[in-house]
Amino acid sequence: MTRHGKRADLIVHEQDPFNAETSLAALAEGPLTATDAFYVRGHGSVPEIDPAAWRLRVHGLVERELNLSLMTLREAFREREVVATLQCAGNRRAGLMAVRDIPGEAPWGAGATGTATWTGVALADVLALAGPLEEAAHVGFVGADPSDEAEPAQPFGGSIPLDKACRPEVLLAWGMNGEPLPAVHGAPVRVVVPGYIGARSVKWLERIEVRSAPWEGYFQDVVYRLLPEDGTPGPGAGMPLGLVALNADVLSPADGETVRAGPVEVRGYAFAGGERHVARVDVSLDGGTRWSRAQLLDDLGRWAWRHWRTTVELPPGEHEILVRAWDSSAATQPEDEAALWNPKGYVNNARPRVRVRAAP
Amino acid sequence: MTRHGKRADLIVHEQDPFNAETSLAALAEGPLTATDAFYVRGHGSVPEIDPAAWRLRVHGLVERELNLSLMTLREAFREREVVATLQCAGNRRAGLMAVRDIPGEAPWGAGATGTATWTGVALADVLALAGPLEEAAHVGFVGADPSDEAEPAQPFGGSIPLDKACRPEVLLAWGMNGEPLPAVHGAPVRVVVPGYIGARSVKWLERIEVRSAPWEGYFQDVVYRLLPEDGTPGPGAGMPLGLVALNADVLSPADGETVRAGPVEVRGYAFAGGERHVARVDVSLDGGTRWSRAQLLDDLGRWAWRHWRTTVELPPGEHEILVRAWDSSAATQPEDEAALWNPKGYVNNARPRVRVRAAP
Repeated sequence: MTRHGKRADLIVHEQDPFNAETSLAALAEGPLTATDAFYVRGHGSVPEIDPAAWRLRVHGLVERELNLSLMTLREAFREREVVATLQCAGNRRAGLMAVRDIPGEAPWGAGATGTATWTGVALADVLALAGPLEEAAHVGFVGADPSDEAEPAQPFGGSIPLDKACRPEVLLAWGMNGEPLPAVHGAPVRVVVPGYIGARSVKWLERIEVRSAPWEGYFQDVVYRLLPEDGTPGPGAGMPLGLVALNADVLSPADGETVRAGPVEVRGYAFAGGERHVARVDVSLDGGTRWSRAQLLDDLGRWAWRHWRTTVELPPGEHEILVRAWDSSAATQPEDEAALWNPKGYVNNARPRVRVRAAP
Repeated sequence: MTRHGKRADLIVHEQDPFNAETSLAALAEGPLTATDAFYVRGHGSVPEIDPAAWRLRVHGLVERELNLSLMTLREAFREREVVATLQCAGNRRAGLMAVRDIPGEAPWGAGATGTATWTGVALADVLALAGPLEEAAHVGFVGADPSDEAEPAQPFGGSIPLDKACRPEVLLAWGMNGEPLPAVHGAPVRVVVPGYIGARSVKWLERIEVRSAPWEGYFQDVVYRLLPEDGTPGPGAGMPLGLVALNADVLSPADGETVRAGPVEVRGYAFAGGERHVARVDVSLDGGTRWSRAQLLDDLGRWAWRHWRTTVELPPGEHEILVRAWDSSAATQPEDEAALWNPKGYVNNARPRVRVRAAP
């Protein structure tokens, strides 16, 4: 075990704030990611919170301000469970950094994502008690984790549209994979916003602010925005991220691996994000001229990725395995990773490729 | 005027069933498409319907079957207006046919799309009166237009998920751009499903069937499905289309046009489909190495495309103008049109390009 109850095979990008991604081998174990292998993207030190003293304040454009204890939250609302994939906007940044360096950003591979069963109450139910006013259009979340990454330093925060906040899948969660939410994942209570970038699933939740405008804090107004290639981060620059874009990667074999020539099993994940689902995954061995269909594995519901598998026949020699996923709008991934380069290294959703050597 | 009250500059693919697309010049006139220029995709002859005798039957998995006159529909429910872009799944098929022929399909250019103001009642309000049963999951629509394209011959039909059907933007519409819906567009009443392929916006609506499963008729179970390159149409083959995939095209200058060297205005449309919106449009003159930002024009609401414009400096000579749109999930369009080829020629959403000659 490394720190925070995590397995030793996590790839740690930073110790404090703790930032670590899941190994592809651990992701390949199955469509539900074990808690001790689940990626962590932190922006500040893990705060120590006494659950008995914890209060959740709900304020802003509401008829009735709330100040709820954990006990009230657990007793006054219906408990719900959602299987949801979280994915960091910086997932697969390493591929963009290979094109051109991105100083000051961690080189996340394809393991800044994972799927868990989350337990808690619907944010919608809490909002219904507070009663959003007519002008309410966004719901902001603030954590208990002051971050020096922000300018000025501030707790992590962000918002989602009220429309999304009122859907039953958005949780205030205290459980992960059937166990109490670990401290490093936001205990006592975190937000889980299925289909949205991980940054909106604010950990160590302390405050919910119902607003007329999107969040104006650093983590939504300056970062977690897609800049054009020649853009400079600044308040309101670029487009705000939110919905996750269709993405996929190969989990096995590993890039650079030597496999035995003959039939080789290829496995991976694909995640549609938003309200879409993965409709098809194709695999090509000739750079994209001919494609074969992979088999989509366990369907864990509309908020979870799909794992997929296929068997390809590899004669001895060097091979490149190229993959493309399709979502339920029949949209597929862009080809050219280099053309997706952006100054903060977000949303690399280019078609993944791994190079392998088949040994006789 | 050609038949059906349409302008002479429509590009007619077929007279009966009437199939005609809007000229790009007409689309370029503004973000709202004039009714007499709006594209038509028909699968059967335009039926003659007496509005006074017309009835709408609502049946299937409902507590209460309905059989409504047009007067009741107009008087008993709140009138609503939605600006929505419709787009045929075959829009831009000509680009795929240039890669490899698609026998038996019309070579639609980029004008199988348009945006209008639709007036009617929310399908949700009618469904609420009927009372969907617990097992209800899809809502099917049947028109009054028998089609010989189907095997066996049958009226046009299709379904959408109940979840979408209950959103306020889905209309049973009798008005288009402030005038009565013309016969060729589905009078007296058509469905308008914003964000979905045009095929779900069933014209000459006669029957609504609340179901547990998606529509099993020809126009959803056999066609309007994306097949893999080597697939063969058949019941349930390929993935059903529904949500529109992010798309864009250049409206001016035209492909092959000679323009005057110097500053040249480039205009076009971009449409995100589904619940997404267009977040950015980029233009490149060097094949995609450097991109500049186009200006997004009038925002007509979440169900409408965005027109865009930019000015590029073209020295004398040959040029290729390449465009890519981005949606609110930070997804962009695939590059390679050839790789999108499919046996029925649907969903060509590759980055558009036009070649122009700048004369000194």
